[in-house]
Amino acid sequence: MSKVLKLKCVKCGREYNPAEVLYTCLDCGIDGILDVVLDYDQIKKELTQDYLKKNTDYSLWRYLPAIPLEDTKGIQQLQVGWTPLYDIKSLPKETGLNSFFLKDDSRNPTASLKDRASAVGVAKAVELDRYVMCAASTGNAASSLSGFAASAGIKTHIFVPETAPEAKVTQLLIYGSNVFLVKGTYDEAVELCFKAADEFGWYNRSCAINPYLLEGKKTISYEICEQLGWEAPDIAVVAVGDGCTIGGVWKGFKECYELGLIDKFPKIVGVQAENSNPVTRAFEKKTFEFEYRTPETIADSISVGIPRNGIKALKALQESEGYMVDVSDEEILTAMKILAQKTGVFGEPAGVTSFAGIMKMNELGLLKGDERVVSIVSGSGLKDIKSAMQAAGKANVVEPTLEDVKKIINK
Amino acid sequence: MSKVLKLKCVKCGREYNPAEVLYTCLDCGIDGILDVVLDYDQIKKELTQDYLKKNTDYSLWRYLPAIPLEDTKGIQQLQVGWTPLYDIKSLPKETGLNSFFLKDDSRNPTASLKDRASAVGVAKAVELDRYVMCAASTGNAASSLSGFAASAGIKTHIFVPETAPEAKVTQLLIYGSNVFLVKGTYDEAVELCFKAADEFGWYNRSCAINPYLLEGKKTISYEICEQLGWEAPDIAVVAVGDGCTIGGVWKGFKECYELGLIDKFPKIVGVQAENSNPVTRAFEKKTFEFEYRTPETIADSISVGIPRNGIKALKALQESEGYMVDVSDEEILTAMKILAQKTGVFGEPAGVTSFAGIMKMNELGLLKGDERVVSIVSGSGLKDIKSAMQAAGKANVVEPTLEDVKKIINK
Repeated sequence: MSKVLKLKCVKCGREYNPAEVLYTCLDCGIDGILDVVLDYDQIKKELTQDYLKKNTDYSLWRYLPAIPLEDTKGIQQLQVGWTPLYDIKSLPKETGLNSFFLKDDSRNPTASLKDRASAVGVAKAVELDRYVMCAASTGNAASSLSGFAASAGIKTHIFVPETAPEAKVTQLLIYGSNVFLVKGTYDEAVELCFKAADEFGWYNRSCAINPYLLEGKKTISYEICEQLGWEAPDIAVVAVGDGCTIGGVWKGFKECYELGLIDKFPKIVGVQAENSNPVTRAFEKKTFEFEYRTPETIADSISVGIPRNGIKALKALQESEGYMVDVSDEEILTAMKILAQKTGVFGEPAGVTSFAGIMKMNELGLLKGDERVVSIVSGSGLKDIKSAMQAAGKANVVEPTLEDVKKIINK
Repeated sequence: MSKVLKLKCVKCGREYNPAEVLYTCLDCGIDGILDVVLDYDQIKKELTQDYLKKNTDYSLWRYLPAIPLEDTKGIQQLQVGWTPLYDIKSLPKETGLNSFFLKDDSRNPTASLKDRASAVGVAKAVELDRYVMCAASTGNAASSLSGFAASAGIKTHIFVPETAPEAKVTQLLIYGSNVFLVKGTYDEAVELCFKAADEFGWYNRSCAINPYLLEGKKTISYEICEQLGWEAPDIAVVAVGDGCTIGGVWKGFKECYELGLIDKFPKIVGVQAENSNPVTRAFEKKTFEFEYRTPETIADSISVGIPRNGIKALKALQESEGYMVDVSDEEILTAMKILAQKTGVFGEPAGVTSFAGIMKMNELGLLKGDERVVSIVSGSGLKDIKSAMQAAGKANVVEPTLEDVKKIINK
């Protein structure tokens, strides 16, 4: 029996049989993202703390009973998930916390959290016998899809804004994707990808419309809870662009609670860049409508005009009694440097935005100091070297002589 | 009681008490690299298959009984080692093998195999109360040291050739290292670093003189054997620059045998770039003397004029009855592309050189087809995007219109 009870529109609540609809709500169109409603009574019988204790699969697939796939045939070999959770004690001054937990999801196969979604998306495509896929992305979701699709023999067409960092575009090409660099914003790349998917019948990986992607992302919360010994954190801090990740993170915690794995929820705090903050604005106005402003931030992975999965993001904030915090690009660059120098974890700008958010929460007096706070690093700094160079400072160029070295050391 | 029986010069065989000498042989100077001789009778009592079966530490520290540290106080939190070993079945035509094993060591914290050495090197520095370190490197060893030293609060001075890839230099800076970009070759950077270390009393991380680094690298072979169910592979293929990695890999296999964990050795095959092949030349001439030629290869991590740990490399080949294979830069770029497109693993040029070697071995008729062959990917492609771009091909730039997309799809 399928684990999926139904797909439910997050906007109007209309319910569908999974075989009935591929992407969004037939009434609400693109705003009507569907939520995968699982049969928790059934899952609960299998996915217990005891079951996991005996499970030696240290990847996201250890949570397979809660992932809506019919079988394992589409599961690829790339080792994804079960990334480290570090207890960071070296930043009390910057965070106001004696320690906080850093979940380093840059340690996935293509170096971002998006691999969790791609692993499930590609497996779903294989299940549906769909061997051409597409995605629109600011970079990470695309390079992630490319890597997983490559290992599954699936052809991919990818749409990214022309401004995407070089490393992300190179990843796409090296994995063999057909890449469209769109002369326009991320939002325009999304529109174009959706039109092309319709026209050519490609299976669309976009988390913004494909309900199964979030089912991969939610596994990060299962891991956090398990790595904390099945005690939920007090606060989980997540960078927010389209809202898919924060939506996934919240779904994961809710399910852990639903399945009896944890006994309380964390508060979810979303962080946006101050000039790319549609979710913050909507949250503060208590509306589910988003107002477009041209986004402008160094954190390309969360540079978004209209959040494609904004309703799920707002629900995560409301349901968990959380809130939004904004940070400047300068604060993001500072966070990147501090995190690397004090922990050895080198995140990309969006990847350290949640940590920048914690520093901001500290500044604003929002932390008591004894909470268990988790910060998610969503992507590797190696993906955007140009931004890192802005934070990193300069090297000393020397002739190969001790004299030149002495001049610098004794300066 | 210390696990270290003695340090032994690989050139003249002179033995030392570990407290007596920090780096190389007092007679042979820089050529007299020391080998750490461990008390296997003692280690054997603890490090058994059964002990490991119960060990839930999935990092290189699961092999701590075989790592010459006096205690755990210098061990940093960054999760290093226990990288995936993939059984690749998608490349029979290219390799002549129905399957081969790909050990993806780009999945370490700073995205290279060097993290194994740095983890141990930094722990050793803490043990010795040495809080300023230095290294000369083509890039990976340095960025790796920087990351681990950062998380240990150790200050670092790094010497790299000015031509080191941007990402590697940026990693150094973001981790807070003091960086010297040396106007000269890698060999000149090494000389300068050693002089400066002497002058200022810094603890030198260079694998070429510091005997403890190899003790980290050797853990990759322990992992390979354990991941293969304690059956050694028939052939292990390793890219060779200075010779430290191949030396470490061989030491790991030898120790697994010595400790009774495996019952046969693999043959070790070293791969060099054809215009940076001093080890190949020495091996073929059956000499332990190396002749300098200006190295020239896209694989910067193995671009070496004089191999600093060449004797250990040659001994690995001789003792294991292995051999050397050379590949061209073009073959390396092809290997990078094929590996990414068929497995989802994106290695840097030196990182895929071992796989290029397997394709070459196949071409030369050196493989029978039924051997268990392991290829080590030593670093991530994200570290050298410029090289990857040469292999990757081009993206299509389009206006955000379906018409532009159609033109390309229908071409």
